[in-house]
Amino acid sequence: DLFHRVLFFPDKVVACKAHFRGRDGCKNVNCHFSHSDTSLSELLKYITNAKRSLDVCVFSICCHELADVLVESHERGVIVRVVTDGEQTGATGSQIGKFRSKGIQVRHDNSSFLMHHKYVIIDGEILINGSFNWTRSAVTGNHENVVITNNTELLKPFEEEFENLWELYEPS
Amino acid sequence: DLFHRVLFFPDKVVACKAHFRGRDGCKNVNCHFSHSDTSLSELLKYITNAKRSLDVCVFSICCHELADVLVESHERGVIVRVVTDGEQTGATGSQIGKFRSKGIQVRHDNSSFLMHHKYVIIDGEILINGSFNWTRSAVTGNHENVVITNNTELLKPFEEEFENLWELYEPS
Ligand SMILES: [Zn+2]
Ligand SMILES: [Zn+2]
Repeated sequence: DLFHRVLFFPDKVVACKAHFRGRDGCKNVNCHFSHSDTSLSELLKYITNAKRSLDVCVFSICCHELADVLVESHERGVIVRVVTDGEQTGATGSQIGKFRSKGIQVRHDNSSFLMHHKYVIIDGEILINGSFNWTRSAVTGNHENVVITNNTELLKPFEEEFENLWELYEPS
Repeated sequence: DLFHRVLFFPDKVVACKAHFRGRDGCKNVNCHFSHSDTSLSELLKYITNAKRSLDVCVFSICCHELADVLVESHERGVIVRVVTDGEQTGATGSQIGKFRSKGIQVRHDNSSFLMHHKYVIIDGEILINGSFNWTRSAVTGNHENVVITNNTELLKPFEEEFENLWELYEPS
């Protein structure tokens, strides 16, 4: 079935990692994070549910919560590929070094222009795209959007773009 | 009828303004701009075809071609409203001063966080959204996307977000 969803940021509260990703939820009675759905928790759910592949094409990746979900997906056998902006890989808080040390394949541009996309394709079936970089300030500070859809008219061009960039940025 | 389109940037060539916006096309036999469709020329066509309203919610607006189309739309009676990021209004090349001098209504945030959306709603009927800021480097240098759709499931939330931000940023 076709579906479309739109999530807006900023979240007013920070989603509790233990609550949304642990098997039994969060047991901390003094937890000061949110146990209600937020835009971040919804985003984490989609990515956590990946079964086969995660094609991530995001300009800036600094948010631990989102990066950790990619690492865990990689560790349970999901094929994770990351395309990002070259200059952003050296930015404070960048999670790219962690990806590489965990064996996740990362490729990036080598130009002064920006690899400015912010999208991820889940299992070749769901596209998440918008203004949203994977940074903490994008989650709790900025006004941002993501559109989530399984419409192949939208999905297919983004898949092709991913494969094009993946080849274009192949290390020589 | 429902439609979805995806445009990617960068354009390899710069669209000829005279060709795509003039009544009779470009007559310059030595013109070094493109008379074939580009992602920019497609984007300009959608915006130029606005009949009633343009709700523009874009982080950074520096591209003359896109800004000029907003001014011309305003001058022929289209209601143009612009929401943008406060800090970006003072950036080199920002077109916001021109909008104000022409009588286009502009509102912006006053925080250190970003008003980071990059979308426009045309006549309340077409949504154009993606990673694309309205800058020259986004047109001819960066890797960027825009999704164009008239699906109301997507359009409506973005309209509500626009109205929310428009009120939020009302000058006191
Ligand atoms: Zn908790
Ligand atoms: Zn020309």
